[in-house]
Amino acid sequence: MTYELYYWDGIPGRGEFVRLALEQAGADYIDVARNDGGMARMMAMMKNRTEGIAPLAPPFLKDGELVISHAANILLYLGNRLGLAPEDEAGRITAHGLQLCITDFVAEIHDTHHPIGVSLYYEDQKDEALRRTENFLDERLPKFLGYFEKQLVKKPQGQVHALGDTLTYVDLSLFHLVEGLHYAFPRAMTAAEPDYPLLVALNAQVRELPRIEAYLASERRLAFNEQGIFRYYPELDRS
Amino acid sequence: MTYELYYWDGIPGRGEFVRLALEQAGADYIDVARNDGGMARMMAMMKNRTEGIAPLAPPFLKDGELVISHAANILLYLGNRLGLAPEDEAGRITAHGLQLCITDFVAEIHDTHHPIGVSLYYEDQKDEALRRTENFLDERLPKFLGYFEKQLVKKPQGQVHALGDTLTYVDLSLFHLVEGLHYAFPRAMTAAEPDYPLLVALNAQVRELPRIEAYLASERRLAFNEQGIFRYYPELDRS
Repeated sequence: MTYELYYWDGIPGRGEFVRLALEQAGADYIDVARNDGGMARMMAMMKNRTEGIAPLAPPFLKDGELVISHAANILLYLGNRLGLAPEDEAGRITAHGLQLCITDFVAEIHDTHHPIGVSLYYEDQKDEALRRTENFLDERLPKFLGYFEKQLVKKPQGQVHALGDTLTYVDLSLFHLVEGLHYAFPRAMTAAEPDYPLLVALNAQVRELPRIEAYLASERRLAFNEQGIFRYYPELDRS
Repeated sequence: MTYELYYWDGIPGRGEFVRLALEQAGADYIDVARNDGGMARMMAMMKNRTEGIAPLAPPFLKDGELVISHAANILLYLGNRLGLAPEDEAGRITAHGLQLCITDFVAEIHDTHHPIGVSLYYEDQKDEALRRTENFLDERLPKFLGYFEKQLVKKPQGQVHALGDTLTYVDLSLFHLVEGLHYAFPRAMTAAEPDYPLLVALNAQVRELPRIEAYLASERRLAFNEQGIFRYYPELDRS
């Protein structure tokens, strides 16, 4: 069965956390909205409650008749199917808890450039964005990165993982988080990185996984840009 | 086995979504931080990575040795154990997706009074709060409530439910959401309610469930106040 991933074309966004898992597993999937007529199909699925629940927003995944909303929920569903999650219930729940921390952090990262409302342009909330981002870089970035750093363990063989001895979707998501933060806040992240050696090591390891390396070099990987979650506005970064 | 719920004392907050499920099921649980020495125990669990993963923030639930973070994750875990979730995987995933929409909405509600940073007082971000709340009441409140209204179905016997024919934790959470919004934005909610008849009906039904009614009248139920997610600042409400 081919998985159907529904997410906005043009940005990595929240869909990217799912894409990385599908890619690393070599799963058979279609990025629906990036194909002809896909955008219309995605919008129709959010409008119509034909069967089951219509999702409020992308990303969502269709597996046969089942529609799953929210990146973290999709990863919970796919984790065992793709061999990217612990097999026992306790491990699955712990992985999902960590992924929900990433979800919370992503929402805060988004709100650095949109502290007033998603319907307004960045330019129309720039003063507030400057103030929120200063608070974010001072307090929230170290809080979350410090927490994730603490969860990582370096194995005797040198590999770094968040859970157990093998790669999980949490590792892949942490890779993307660090990539995105580097894009959005290059000066702040360069200054902060020495405090997070395991996150840096994990990032390098994930980038070199053969399937991830091939994916990053492909056209399937979308570049960061100023329409997504991670945006580079030099005035928001550390000076 | 007695469930241990860990959440800040003094506010309903995100812990309340879990409490309502435990109460409706008549589950055996302790609200740890509200007992002698409980606050210290909670803080210690967030600090120490003794075994497994230390949670980033409350609420978290301890069931034997297992620690589960995030309200939605806790409800996913408890759902079947308490008889408050669909039994099949598709139903469980759909319920969890809806709960994650509630999570997203709760974060936005919180940020109406804290658009710049959680570490700052409301008074120090009041201008931004006024602007964010205006956008929230104009656009986000109708978006989310409209979505939840669409998920609700009135059964032939008159009962309203989000999923299938029985009460789930999603119904309980939607009850609390409406309660909290009424507390925070009484004028806006009174004006908006005619657009959401099924949410209003569900709210009334849940309030009359015998166990919920007893809980709401008990000391276990904490009152809304200006330390929590749902805060009443008259200047933020519709005039």
